[in-house]
Amino acid sequence: MSCQLLDIGEIGLISRLTANMSYTKDIIIGVGDDAAAVKPSVGNLLLITTDMLVEGVHFTLPTITPYQLGWKSMAVNMSDIAAMGGISRWAVIGLGMPAHTPVSFTESLYDGIQAICQRYHTQLVGGDTVSCDKIVINITLTGEVSHENLIQRSGARVGDVIVVTNTIGDAGAGLSAIQHGLNTPSAQTVIKKHLEPIPRLTESRQIVQLLSPTAMIDISDGLSIDLCRLAEASRVGVRIYEDNLPISEAVSIVARELSIKKLYLALSGGEDYELLFTMSLQMVKALDCVDVPLTVIGEIVEFEMGQIMVASAGLENTLEFQGYEHFRALRH
Amino acid sequence: MSCQLLDIGEIGLISRLTANMSYTKDIIIGVGDDAAAVKPSVGNLLLITTDMLVEGVHFTLPTITPYQLGWKSMAVNMSDIAAMGGISRWAVIGLGMPAHTPVSFTESLYDGIQAICQRYHTQLVGGDTVSCDKIVINITLTGEVSHENLIQRSGARVGDVIVVTNTIGDAGAGLSAIQHGLNTPSAQTVIKKHLEPIPRLTESRQIVQLLSPTAMIDISDGLSIDLCRLAEASRVGVRIYEDNLPISEAVSIVARELSIKKLYLALSGGEDYELLFTMSLQMVKALDCVDVPLTVIGEIVEFEMGQIMVASAGLENTLEFQGYEHFRALRH
Repeated sequence: MSCQLLDIGEIGLISRLTANMSYTKDIIIGVGDDAAAVKPSVGNLLLITTDMLVEGVHFTLPTITPYQLGWKSMAVNMSDIAAMGGISRWAVIGLGMPAHTPVSFTESLYDGIQAICQRYHTQLVGGDTVSCDKIVINITLTGEVSHENLIQRSGARVGDVIVVTNTIGDAGAGLSAIQHGLNTPSAQTVIKKHLEPIPRLTESRQIVQLLSPTAMIDISDGLSIDLCRLAEASRVGVRIYEDNLPISEAVSIVARELSIKKLYLALSGGEDYELLFTMSLQMVKALDCVDVPLTVIGEIVEFEMGQIMVASAGLENTLEFQGYEHFRALRH
Repeated sequence: MSCQLLDIGEIGLISRLTANMSYTKDIIIGVGDDAAAVKPSVGNLLLITTDMLVEGVHFTLPTITPYQLGWKSMAVNMSDIAAMGGISRWAVIGLGMPAHTPVSFTESLYDGIQAICQRYHTQLVGGDTVSCDKIVINITLTGEVSHENLIQRSGARVGDVIVVTNTIGDAGAGLSAIQHGLNTPSAQTVIKKHLEPIPRLTESRQIVQLLSPTAMIDISDGLSIDLCRLAEASRVGVRIYEDNLPISEAVSIVARELSIKKLYLALSGGEDYELLFTMSLQMVKALDCVDVPLTVIGEIVEFEMGQIMVASAGLENTLEFQGYEHFRALRH
């Protein structure tokens, strides 16, 4: 029988998980004291973000592997740091698990966390492991950014273009494919996007350096809801051109296979963790300099004009404001 | 009927909770963007600590009021910062709650958090609220400390004296009183200590400035287990004098009322959040300069001598290494 947490206890678990940790020079104290102590760079601002993932709400087992779960828990936080224009630095984890959880599950979860941390030069410096009848993962990630590079949601100006990285709707299509048991090649592609999101940390640096974005947000709850957040914070309106939305071949196929509108997936799917940002029209010629496809999907208009979606036929509609909201099913 | 979270949704909840937030000048971006952005002091180290509290594991309702729950969730983190010699700065909260939770519950929880934050000059700068079938509170707190003032667990030296703030066993006695439904005046006193712990942030500053501690830890899991952690980290042994342990009148009475050994409460009770530290014998004359009672309870000895407890009659025993450990009942 496989070894469970109740066999080794909290102290045994922590010593296993932290056995091979090595720290960079900026870590004065890592795991094992009352708090971690790290050395911030001089002159930078500190960014802090936190995300809680709950079994049965944010993920179901065994739909996601423990490795993917660790990866994703960290990725969603890194995506928030990317959306501020920052670099990812130090993380701590609060981890609730049932006592009968296999030790190997927790080790794989940490492997996933360590893999993405290594890729994005981030250090796990502390945590708290507790018993809980469902798995709950709360990662808090700090980052750093210079004041000049800090990008808020609130800086969009009338006349700016609206740009999105890569394609949208993939993760939402992946979730639908899982829920419907669809396992076609296209389904597998989008399922991977849902389970192993790539935080746009590297691309964010390039976007900030090359395109001078005026406002930025990551797409976590769906394009429409996150775009409305950016517009509300900036006190502007938006006009989106439906035909411009970057929808992948895989999303189109899965949408057809499941008889879902691909536009719905693109607008309300959520969890793409792509960056959505605004910038001056003059910068459009530099879009190709960034190492990820960038697409202009619309423009910033006066606040009074609201959130408008322009369909293929030139028809204008209010942008549907749908996406995931906790404590309710859907917000209308 | 009272308003529940499902009536107002996540977005409605967040706007209620953050309506009256005001920030100090060091907060560049607070709640409402992808991450908070704050301005660290130049030259200091950053401290990071995180604690997850789970309903049914760390607390039960309605034994603790939501206000006390908020207070305590933050206090346990502040205690970790105090144990490093630091000052408390910026916090974020991950909060899981059932959809049928009354909005007033969450508001009182935040009132408790804000009250302790205000008292200790700490700012709540962000969070994540999600649905969860049990209440889960994960606070991550950052602090600052100069390199000179940083106190680790690992610095205790042979010949140092071992000192503890205030009295010990009170919170453990309070928990026992709750579990046995004891409601005498002394029980009420220790129950309050269990539900509303005082983090020793102010006292920590004085201890660091006036007593030059060599090692420090906060008592969260019980004196014996936390003292052993300090001794292990410092590679030293300890000798504790039973008669010197500062046990309050209220603990003695409650122990008698419940037929529990008061020594057991003092050694293994846990959750006192008092500071336990070591310092040079020469500094003992300055103990009175700190604004909380300090008691020398023992001395640091060679590692080979182990963890020894000296009883009244001069009898020496191995210090019982008991305290709370997750995933198991008790560790022996």
